[in-house]
Amino acid sequence: MMQNNTKELIFYTNPESRARIVRRMLEEVGVPYTTKVLNYKGEMKTPEYLKINPLGKVPAIQHGDLVVTETAAICAYLADQFAEKNLAPPIDSPQRGTYYRWLFFAAGPLEMATTAKACGWNLDENRQMIGSGTHDDIVAALELAISKGPFICGEQFTAADVYVGSHISWGMHFKTLEERPSFKSYVERIEARPAAQRATALDDELSN
Amino acid sequence: MMQNNTKELIFYTNPESRARIVRRMLEEVGVPYTTKVLNYKGEMKTPEYLKINPLGKVPAIQHGDLVVTETAAICAYLADQFAEKNLAPPIDSPQRGTYYRWLFFAAGPLEMATTAKACGWNLDENRQMIGSGTHDDIVAALELAISKGPFICGEQFTAADVYVGSHISWGMHFKTLEERPSFKSYVERIEARPAAQRATALDDELSN
Repeated sequence: MMQNNTKELIFYTNPESRARIVRRMLEEVGVPYTTKVLNYKGEMKTPEYLKINPLGKVPAIQHGDLVVTETAAICAYLADQFAEKNLAPPIDSPQRGTYYRWLFFAAGPLEMATTAKACGWNLDENRQMIGSGTHDDIVAALELAISKGPFICGEQFTAADVYVGSHISWGMHFKTLEERPSFKSYVERIEARPAAQRATALDDELSN
Repeated sequence: MMQNNTKELIFYTNPESRARIVRRMLEEVGVPYTTKVLNYKGEMKTPEYLKINPLGKVPAIQHGDLVVTETAAICAYLADQFAEKNLAPPIDSPQRGTYYRWLFFAAGPLEMATTAKACGWNLDENRQMIGSGTHDDIVAALELAISKGPFICGEQFTAADVYVGSHISWGMHFKTLEERPSFKSYVERIEARPAAQRATALDDELSN
């Protein structure tokens, strides 16, 4: 894996964004990276940055010549690229299906449900048109993701926990997701990790 | 890969759903599978099926003891599980980042943009709360995904093309995504594939 370590890894972020999830993943991976903080007053909309992410948002990473955007995609990419860190189930294992299931569930239906709640949109009235399911169904499904534990893929902590755990934590914090005992104990387990604590400290410092 | 071929692969579907995307992926993979069609009049809400997918929707697959839901997750899982079909970039390649980037882009922002359009929700008014970006930004980013071509990962056709190509095709069909020449030529390229044509024929037959 020397080849990967020789490529520069740049992290485009703002501590007031979903980029905090990527910071946690980077700290779990534990390889050196360069942090570039972009403000909301135009730095995400410069021609240079729009070449990195045409959506003009963070997070994004650049790894050598490659750009990756979308929080979950960055987590999954880093897990595969630094496979020796064991942050994804083996590619030919059944757990790989569980891993993708909940990564895409959080990126799709869960993000839809919490965004709809924040914006006052009604998923249930539009259920014929929406692939994601109703709010209550989505919350119930989320319980299933973490019910076996201790982690989504069982004993192995993976990038899916970094991503889904962050969603649950911030959903409860911003009141877009109800508090449940199972959610709280799962989040406590995720946030007790040294990498999560390092990531939070780094981002809290940037916020000040 | 004999081990995988000995496990039964069951496909839960309805031809009037996003399950058509999974059908395309299954036909690209080209291994035997059993199709179970569930109607919208209750068959997706039985206690038995809710154990498979608590959201009570299709698609889902069962592969041996494993259940996978979420259309994009099923596509990514099948690509990894049947790696010899070359429907995903190698796990340690840079293309893997591009692959995840656009899979998650379509499952998140693109699904959000087209759903919002179908439901009459305004993404732009709520841009502070929404991670996905505005409608116009999302459409512009989609152009980038397919601009290098012929496929999302370059010369290699992957599960990301199955998924993103279907989104673009149905987005244009249902008028939730504007028609652009680049979108149309990409979709034509995807839909000309023998596997896509087999999948469409099988699902059209179920629809009659």
